Amino acid sequence: DFLMALENDIKPAFGVSEEDLDKFLPNGIVEWGASIKGILEDAKAEVKQARTSAKTPLLTVLLEGPVGSGKTALAIHIARESEFPFIKVVSPGEMVGYTEAAKCMAIKKAFDDAYKSQLSIVVLDDIERLIDYVSIGPRFSNTVLQTLLVLLKKSPPLGKRLLVIGTTSARGVLDEMGLIRAFNHVIHVSNISKSSELITALKEFDVFEANELDQIEKKVGKHKVWIGIKELIVHSEMARQMPQHLRVTKFLTLLHEEGGFDGPTI
Amino acid sequence: DFLMALENDIKPAFGVSEEDLDKFLPNGIVEWGASIKGILEDAKAEVKQARTSAKTPLLTVLLEGPVGSGKTALAIHIARESEFPFIKVVSPGEMVGYTEAAKCMAIKKAFDDAYKSQLSIVVLDDIERLIDYVSIGPRFSNTVLQTLLVLLKKSPPLGKRLLVIGTTSARGVLDEMGLIRAFNHVIHVSNISKSSELITALKEFDVFEANELDQIEKKVGKHKVWIGIKELIVHSEMARQMPQHLRVTKFLTLLHEEGGFDGPTI
Amino acid sequence: DFLMALENDIKPAFGVSEEDLDKFLPNGIVEWGASIKGILEDAKAEVKQARTSAKTPLLTVLLEGPVGSGKTALAIHIARESEFPFIKVVSPGEMVGYTEAAKCMAIKKAFDDAYKSQLSIVVLDDIERLIDYVSIGPRFSNTVLQTLLVLLKKSPPLGKRLLVIGTTSARGVLDEMGLIRAFNHVIHVSNISKSSELITALKEFDVFEANELDQIEKKVGKHKVWIGIKELIVHSEMARQMPQHLRVTKFLTLLHEEGGFDGPTI
Amino acid sequence: DFLMALENDIKPAFGVSEEDLDKFLPNGIVEWGASIKGILEDAKAEVKQARTSAKTPLLTVLLEGPVGSGKTALAIHIARESEFPFIKVVSPGEMVGYTEAAKCMAIKKAFDDAYKSQLSIVVLDDIERLIDYVSIGPRFSNTVLQTLLVLLKKSPPLGKRLLVIGTTSARGVLDEMGLIRAFNHVIHVSNISKSSELITALKEFDVFEANELDQIEKKVGKHKVWIGIKELIVHSEMARQMPQHLRVTKFLTLLHEEGGFDGPTI
Amino acid sequence: DFLMALENDIKPAFGVSEEDLDKFLPNGIVEWGASIKGILEDAKAEVKQARTSAKTPLLTVLLEGPVGSGKTALAIHIARESEFPFIKVVSPGEMVGYTEAAKCMAIKKAFDDAYKSQLSIVVLDDIERLIDYVSIGPRFSNTVLQTLLVLLKKSPPLGKRLLVIGTTSARGVLDEMGLIRAFNHVIHVSNISKSSELITALKEFDVFEANELDQIEKKVGKHKVWIGIKELIVHSEMARQMPQHLRVTKFLTLLHEEGGFDGPTI
Amino acid sequence: DFLMALENDIKPAFGVSEEDLDKFLPNGIVEWGASIKGILEDAKAEVKQARTSAKTPLLTVLLEGPVGSGKTALAIHIARESEFPFIKVVSPGEMVGYTEAAKCMAIKKAFDDAYKSQLSIVVLDDIERLIDYVSIGPRFSNTVLQTLLVLLKKSPPLGKRLLVIGTTSARGVLDEMGLIRAFNHVIHVSNISKSSELITALKEFDVFEANELDQIEKKVGKHKVWIGIKELIVHSEMARQMPQHLRVTKFLTLLHEEGGFDGPTI
Ligand SMILES: Nc1ncnc2c1ncn2[C@@H]1O[C@H](COP(=O)(O)OP(=O)(O)OP(=O)(O)O)[C@@H](O)[C@H]1O
Ligand SMILES: Nc1ncnc2c1ncn2[C@@H]1O[C@H](COP(=O)(O)OP(=O)(O)OP(=O)(O)O)[C@@H](O)[C@H]1O
Ligand SMILES: Nc1ncnc2c1ncn2[C@@H]1O[C@H](COP(=O)(O)OP(=O)(O)OP(=O)(O)O)[C@@H](O)[C@H]1O
Ligand SMILES: Nc1ncnc2c1ncn2[C@@H]1O[C@H](COP(=O)(O)OP(=O)(O)OP(=O)(O)O)[C@@H](O)[C@H]1O
Ligand SMILES: Nc1ncnc2c1ncn2[C@@H]1O[C@H](COP(=O)(O)OP(=O)(O)OP(=O)(O)O)[C@@H](O)[C@H]1O
Ligand SMILES: Nc1ncnc2c1ncn2[C@@H]1O[C@H](COP(=O)(O)OP(=O)(O)OP(=O)(O)O)[C@@H](O)[C@H]1O
Ligand SMILES: [Mg+2]
Ligand SMILES: [Mg+2]
Ligand SMILES: [Mg+2]
Ligand SMILES: [Mg+2]
Ligand SMILES: [Mg+2]
Ligand SMILES: [Mg+2]
Repeated sequence: DFLMALENDIKPAFGVSEEDLDKFLPNGIVEWGASIKGILEDAKAEVKQARTSAKTPLLTVLLEGPVGSGKTALAIHIARESEFPFIKVVSPGEMVGYTEAAKCMAIKKAFDDAYKSQLSIVVLDDIERLIDYVSIGPRFSNTVLQTLLVLLKKSPPLGKRLLVIGTTSARGVLDEMGLIRAFNHVIHVSNISKSSELITALKEFDVFEANELDQIEKKVGKHKVWIGIKELIVHSEMARQMPQHLRVTKFLTLLHEEGGFDGPTI
Repeated sequence: DFLMALENDIKPAFGVSEEDLDKFLPNGIVEWGASIKGILEDAKAEVKQARTSAKTPLLTVLLEGPVGSGKTALAIHIARESEFPFIKVVSPGEMVGYTEAAKCMAIKKAFDDAYKSQLSIVVLDDIERLIDYVSIGPRFSNTVLQTLLVLLKKSPPLGKRLLVIGTTSARGVLDEMGLIRAFNHVIHVSNISKSSELITALKEFDVFEANELDQIEKKVGKHKVWIGIKELIVHSEMARQMPQHLRVTKFLTLLHEEGGFDGPTI
Repeated sequence: DFLMALENDIKPAFGVSEEDLDKFLPNGIVEWGASIKGILEDAKAEVKQARTSAKTPLLTVLLEGPVGSGKTALAIHIARESEFPFIKVVSPGEMVGYTEAAKCMAIKKAFDDAYKSQLSIVVLDDIERLIDYVSIGPRFSNTVLQTLLVLLKKSPPLGKRLLVIGTTSARGVLDEMGLIRAFNHVIHVSNISKSSELITALKEFDVFEANELDQIEKKVGKHKVWIGIKELIVHSEMARQMPQHLRVTKFLTLLHEEGGFDGPTI
Repeated sequence: DFLMALENDIKPAFGVSEEDLDKFLPNGIVEWGASIKGILEDAKAEVKQARTSAKTPLLTVLLEGPVGSGKTALAIHIARESEFPFIKVVSPGEMVGYTEAAKCMAIKKAFDDAYKSQLSIVVLDDIERLIDYVSIGPRFSNTVLQTLLVLLKKSPPLGKRLLVIGTTSARGVLDEMGLIRAFNHVIHVSNISKSSELITALKEFDVFEANELDQIEKKVGKHKVWIGIKELIVHSEMARQMPQHLRVTKFLTLLHEEGGFDGPTI
Repeated sequence: DFLMALENDIKPAFGVSEEDLDKFLPNGIVEWGASIKGILEDAKAEVKQARTSAKTPLLTVLLEGPVGSGKTALAIHIARESEFPFIKVVSPGEMVGYTEAAKCMAIKKAFDDAYKSQLSIVVLDDIERLIDYVSIGPRFSNTVLQTLLVLLKKSPPLGKRLLVIGTTSARGVLDEMGLIRAFNHVIHVSNISKSSELITALKEFDVFEANELDQIEKKVGKHKVWIGIKELIVHSEMARQMPQHLRVTKFLTLLHEEGGFDGPTI
Repeated sequence: DFLMALENDIKPAFGVSEEDLDKFLPNGIVEWGASIKGILEDAKAEVKQARTSAKTPLLTVLLEGPVGSGKTALAIHIARESEFPFIKVVSPGEMVGYTEAAKCMAIKKAFDDAYKSQLSIVVLDDIERLIDYVSIGPRFSNTVLQTLLVLLKKSPPLGKRLLVIGTTSARGVLDEMGLIRAFNHVIHVSNISKSSELITALKEFDVFEANELDQIEKKVGKHKVWIGIKELIVHSEMARQMPQHLRVTKFLTLLHEEGGFDGPTI
């Protein structure tokens, strides 16, 4: 029991286990289009530079895109594929109810732990949430923001290398705060926007049968589609609850209601 | 006595008893119109998805509508009908005088308790009040808001399922705060707006006799009616105090004064 | 002595004594016009509903009107006439120098105490002062405001009944804050605005002799009068200090200076 | 020594000694014009009403006028002349460096002490300073403001009488804050604005000889004069330092520089 | 050592030693023009009035002018020349990192110490810094500001006399804050603005030889010069580092770059 | 170990070791253009004046320029070349998570330590970060700002000399805050803006072979180039990861994407 506790205490200092990463990737990565492939390739180059270039011991990259487009899942996937010995996810979900000071300390600790490993990745998930941003005011934690601005510039100790991967759906705001400029590279994550992409993704979810997919493809046709992979999963699962003859209609209605589709639903 | 105290302490961790839910539903659910039926059906589908879909262990739905339209009563009713083993109501009435930090902790605890049960429902009642919102300024607790934004996105542990039901009469404001987008679905709760709905509701309250109801129906006729079920109960009860020959007039006058009716009162 | 202290400690939990209520009613209630009669009747109906209707265990009513129009005195008078076993006055005068948190606790305690009695009245006097409102900014205590908003909606425990009577001279502001909508009924208290009302009131104060009252009535004639009962008492008392031949002139001058009268003073 | 300390501790509870009042009146009261006489008469009537009218146990009066017009000196003079057994001066000079809460407590204590005496006067000196007002922002202590607003309305206990005398040179601001309306009467204190008033005042100061005063009177003639009695003392004292032949010129130059005089200086 | 500590502790209570004053006057007072003479004369009259006039036991004077024009040096010089037994310099440099409350206490202590001496001078150096003023916002410490406003009006105890000398380069801001009006007199300190004044000052600094001074005088000619004595010292010292043939050019270039000169540099 | 700790504790009081300075200069100083030479010469003159002029014991100079233009590296380089016995770098990276008060204390300590040495340099790195500046609001730590404003004016003790070197990429903001005026001199650090400068810099980085450099030079030609030395290193290192035939294109694409180049990339 004591050893257990100890291990729990120590583990974060050496990064997270496979299992812990899994919770950020509940439904895997579906390659629903070319943009996903592009992102994964760019990410590989970053990982390689982080691993090998002595002149850039600190590399920082930001995944930005609409709400629910899959940024967190991609960031975690990239981190896991890197096979770096130390991976730490800094996530708002772990800091509910923390004071600003406690948040800063937790973030600082993540970096300090990373500095101890030869090769490390720190994922800063949902940066607008880490800084408690809300557009009314606007309000945000300047204390956490400044902590991020400083840590994104501070070199790791001699001989250590660190890759920071951030995610955000508030690019505009982060830009005003100087946070975009603080990253070495910015990678855009897009929503699903074509009928073919939609079908590719749906195929993987095992909700609709082949003929239903054909039906959807025909209904969608050339109409505008605009939906994040995350919401798509919720909608197709709702469709799954329906009696078979209502599924397609329900699915298209949901897509339509949330503004993700402007064609006919029946 | 000690066991009593213990039980009180433990109970919240395992949800509320029937009795506790009752206090949010003082006057039951009257099916005064088609919209009520629709809401209850939609809700059932959500409950089913929460119960069965492995891909969406977290589902979130918001009941929004005018002040006094019956949102809280409906949310509690839905939760009770679900027969989920864990139901927790997060209500501003339980947190009078709490500091922001204490509120966050109480909300966090509700979710943490829910995470321990296989199937749980957390009701976030009167969200604008949970976040201490007032339109002058505007002011609100960003700490509580951020806590909600994070918890509405955080997946329960593997194998656990959670349905969150929120209520609000401040849709516009919550939208600016990103709280609307944070829910998977939004269901609208309406005021009574037709003469027939009004009569259906009044029948249940046992205040007016048949001929009085006829009188009211005739007076209202095609005039605009716009009243929440909650205020309607207060007005009809006030009418009940009156000597019989004044009841109808008093009732229509009250409706008129509060802007809920633009026809003749006598 | 100890028992005395104990009694003092216990008393507030069981409402205030007659004596304590008297201090809010220093000069009794003068029925200077029809509006006063109307207010007292409306109030009686509220008290009856609070006492008898099982469907509305919580009733809330607000007395609003200009500064010094007699709102506090009327609220206390209504409470006293109700003969409810528990009456608690929440008054800014009792909370000078309290922190916001202490104010909230004191208000919460008043309601908690009320919940213990079968039939209770809580008077929320001078709501704009309870929430520390000032128009510059504007500034106010959101903590106290939210406490009021919540308590005005929270049902007493099963079987208990509560009537809340508020007073304010800042209707516009309270409306912006959602506090007007939070009351079930709103009753307007007016200033004295007719020559006849002025004379009726003055007769009761025993300052002017019959012929002086005639003089005043003639001087006022059809001119606009606009004065609260509270200020009227101060002015007539100032007139009382004067040598008899100057009284009427002094009184009219004071009325004139404070903008309460636009006719001739001599 | 101990008794001394005790006495010091007790004294404030029973008002200030003659001596203590003197420090607010360093140069006495010079009757430089008719307006001063008027103020003193009005004040006498207030004092009489405070002493005798049972219906107005609380009377409040505000002296307002330009910076340095003599408000504080007049307030203290009125208090002293009243011969009331309890007189307490609430002055910003006694509260340098106090927190807002400490200020409120000190003010509350002044009133609580006053409530213990049959007949009391509380002087609220320099109200804009008591509330830490500055026009940039604007900023002020709302805590102290609310304390004043409440105490200016709270009746003393049965049988006790209290006269509150306030002073301010920020009438406009206090009006916005609702502080003007909170006083029963407002008395205006004016600057010296006529050549004859200037000469009357200067005669008392014993700086200029008869022929010098004639010189000044001639120079001033019909030109505009606008100077507070407080600044006038500083200027005439500066003139006193000068060699006799420069005195008049220096005096007129100073008057001119500070914008108090628009005629020739030589 | 203990005595040393004691002395250090006691000394401030009896003013500063010559030595301590010296550090504010590193380069003495150069009489570079008529305005300096005028300031010193005016100051002498103030000192005399402070010493002798019983009717004005508190005198306050403000030195205001552009950044680096020599205000602090002049204030200290005047204080030292007064030969008053107690001189205390309240300087931002002594309060780095103090909280607002600590600053207030330090300022209050300076005045309290001064009140104990028959004749005292308190120098309030760099008032905009004492109140932590910055134009963005604007922001400043209202606590310190109010402390100054009160202390600038509070009479010393009977029989004691106090002269307060303030310095500032933010006259406009202090005016908005009511701080200018709070001083009895305001004396303007100017920059060097004429070729002749420039040469007079440079002669004293022992940097340039006679022929170089002639060169500079000719170059400057009728061109606009506008430079504070403090910056002039920095520039001439920079010129001193240069090889002789570059000195004049370097000096004129520096003057030009900082906007202090609009003529030719070579 | 204890001695180690001691040494660590003591060392900062006597400045930083060579090694510690190195971490701010990871890739040395490349003389990519004339402006670099100019900066280093100006800096030498400052260092000389700081060392020798008795009249200016405090000298302050600010390096300002675009993000990543090399300001920090230059400041450290200048400090190291001075061979002053005490060098202290005040850097945001050392103060992550500090409260405002702690930051002020750390800054104050750096200066107090410097005052103890005959000849000292304090580097204030990234001033906008030291004061927690963000353009939204705008917000910043006024406490730290005021500390800097005061310390930049406060003379070291008699006989000690101090050179302060600041760096910033927010000149406009610092100007509004009065921080630019608070420095004796301001030196501009520029981005690389000419093809020749680009090639000079790239030659040093050992990424491209001679013919590749020729290719780049030709592609760039007369097109606008605008890139900081810091970003240039990141881009050329990214190019280094690429297979040889893609290097030049990748490099030009990166330059193009970040807005640093407007010519053809292939
Ligand atoms: N190609 C893909 N990219 C990303 N996520 C995918 C992909 N295919 C499937 N998914 C699944 O989609 C979901 C994406 O959710 P995720 O939380 O990563 O989105 P997000 O953009 O971070 O959302 P938010 O804006 O709310 O933070 C995950 O469940 C993930 O397993
Ligand atoms: N169909 C119905 N839907 C909802 N409530 C009903 C219905 N029929 C009767 N009621 C009764 O009406 C009242 C509705 O009050 P409730 O507090 O739920 O309204 P609300 O919309 O939450 O109000 P608020 O906006 O003030 O929070 C309850 O007493 C409930 O028992
Ligand atoms: N008809 C009446 N209604 C109310 N007060 C009356 C009436 N007749 C006499 N009074 C007396 O007039 C005074 C009314 O003062 P009260 O404090 O109630 O006014 P208010 O409107 O609450 O003032 P404020 O706006 O300052 O709170 C009391 O002294 C009360 O005894
Ligand atoms: N008629 C008078 N009225 C008031 N003060 C007088 C009069 N004659 C002489 N004085 C003297 O003039 C001075 C007035 O100063 P006082 O502090 O009362 O002015 P004030 O208006 O309160 O100033 P401030 O606006 O700064 O508070 C006192 O020294 C007082 O003794
Ligand atoms: N006539 C003079 N007046 C003032 N200072 C002089 C004069 N002649 C020489 N000096 C020297 O010039 C310098 C003036 O600096 P000082 O700090 O007094 O200026 P300041 O106006 O207070 O600056 P700041 O606006 O930065 O506070 C001092 O070193 C002082 O010794
Ligand atoms: N001539 C040069 N001047 C400055 N830095 C150079 C030069 N040549 C090479 N370098 C290298 O370029 C990098 C400059 O980074 P540095 O952190 O100094 O930039 P910065 O302007 O301070 O950036 P930031 O605006 O982010 O603070 C360092 O790695 C430094 O070793
Ligand atoms: Mg995400
Ligand atoms: Mg509700
Ligand atoms: Mg009242
Ligand atoms: Mg005064
Ligand atoms: Mg100065
Ligand atoms: Mg830098």
